[in-house]
Amino acid sequence: MSSLKLKIVIVGAGNVAWHLGKELQKNDQEIVQIYNRSVEPALLLARRLKCDFTTRYDNLYAEADLYILAVKDAVIESVSKNLLLKDKLVVHTSGAIDQAKIKHERRGVFYPLQTFSKEKKLNFKSIPFCIEASKSQDYNTLMRLATLLSPKVYNINSHQRKVLHVAAVFACNFSNLMYMMADDILQKEKIPLDILQPLIKETALKITKLKPKEVQTGPAVRKDQSTINAHLDYLGKGVSFNVYEMLTQTITAKNTDEL
Amino acid sequence: MSSLKLKIVIVGAGNVAWHLGKELQKNDQEIVQIYNRSVEPALLLARRLKCDFTTRYDNLYAEADLYILAVKDAVIESVSKNLLLKDKLVVHTSGAIDQAKIKHERRGVFYPLQTFSKEKKLNFKSIPFCIEASKSQDYNTLMRLATLLSPKVYNINSHQRKVLHVAAVFACNFSNLMYMMADDILQKEKIPLDILQPLIKETALKITKLKPKEVQTGPAVRKDQSTINAHLDYLGKGVSFNVYEMLTQTITAKNTDEL
Repeated sequence: MSSLKLKIVIVGAGNVAWHLGKELQKNDQEIVQIYNRSVEPALLLARRLKCDFTTRYDNLYAEADLYILAVKDAVIESVSKNLLLKDKLVVHTSGAIDQAKIKHERRGVFYPLQTFSKEKKLNFKSIPFCIEASKSQDYNTLMRLATLLSPKVYNINSHQRKVLHVAAVFACNFSNLMYMMADDILQKEKIPLDILQPLIKETALKITKLKPKEVQTGPAVRKDQSTINAHLDYLGKGVSFNVYEMLTQTITAKNTDEL
Repeated sequence: MSSLKLKIVIVGAGNVAWHLGKELQKNDQEIVQIYNRSVEPALLLARRLKCDFTTRYDNLYAEADLYILAVKDAVIESVSKNLLLKDKLVVHTSGAIDQAKIKHERRGVFYPLQTFSKEKKLNFKSIPFCIEASKSQDYNTLMRLATLLSPKVYNINSHQRKVLHVAAVFACNFSNLMYMMADDILQKEKIPLDILQPLIKETALKITKLKPKEVQTGPAVRKDQSTINAHLDYLGKGVSFNVYEMLTQTITAKNTDEL
């Protein structure tokens, strides 16, 4: 297989465009143009990538192999409608938006499953890419492109991507809420959250090797009712009490299922 | 200060005994005996540590410097009553149990704040030790012993330890439940949890530098009701639905507090 060398237009100049553009370039892809509605972000990114940029749809480079929409979820559909291209592959980079929101016949999704902040450098090799395309040849191209950036490339359709998003709310947003609630509890006793950092880290890293179900510890899974009662007594009535009670019941129920 | 060299009896042969025994030995402490009610775990651990073991209280080695009760919370008190020792330091390793449950006059707590699984190797240097003792000389001994294992040693009394334990249930047990629920959701679609590992890791590591409250992301904190509704629709009625709804409300409420 010959090495992949695509001409790519990036639409958007935000955090995803910023990191992805550079990484694609590092991997021998040619960023031919940045399109962005406003000048300044486009100019900054074009300087970073030493490439052309435009703020007008009618100046869009027409002969690229791939158009990557790295724009906000809400405008993916309307931006796609504005790209007057003939038989060109257009993809978005969003976790939540259906592939069908892209109006081009050759369409797809090139979704890096990670949070991007401009200031924070990312190791692309650890970022999972979720790939989808309407045509199998385009799928293959996206797969080859993603594989250049990361060994973690997944074939994920729009439905699966939505499910992944629900799961990510549990695994990330809700686990962060648990850290926040722990912090609130400790603050009342003037104990720094730092003391729990190793435990938090170990809990997160443990499941890279073992299933979460296999490594569940604590009073709920041990059915240690006297500790559970002592904890509920300490929490008193309120939000923490209610969350503790519901999650304890959930652990107990999930554990009983197994028997 | 001369180097510390204690003769230690470990009571119990579970996960904590398994890891702690080895680590103490590595740091030049002498494990003289394992006591355990049932033979097999005692034998396995004694082999691992190349030391003596017994299953009978009347065979307990009487001349150790330190007796570490690494047993279940529920039996700490009764086991302590069975250890007929004269003027010996007896400690437990539990987060939840009051020091006073140990019936010996020289008593204390040697609590490694970490989640232990037999299969998983641990870096003790990152484990916080919470130390408490009834006598100041014994406190000093435990402090020196803990410092051999880890630079993170905290003077934590029984009340603070209980609070820490409640907070740890949120930060560790409940966040692992969130991983488990994410895993359950993904399994139905035959998506491996692996795909969320980088996000899980990033979420856990983020709070080493920033407060959990500052880094909360997702539809709940954005008050993105259309995504929340889509997620609840997907989950249907059941445990995941109820947990999603309660935790979303909790994030919203905590966020509104701040305004």
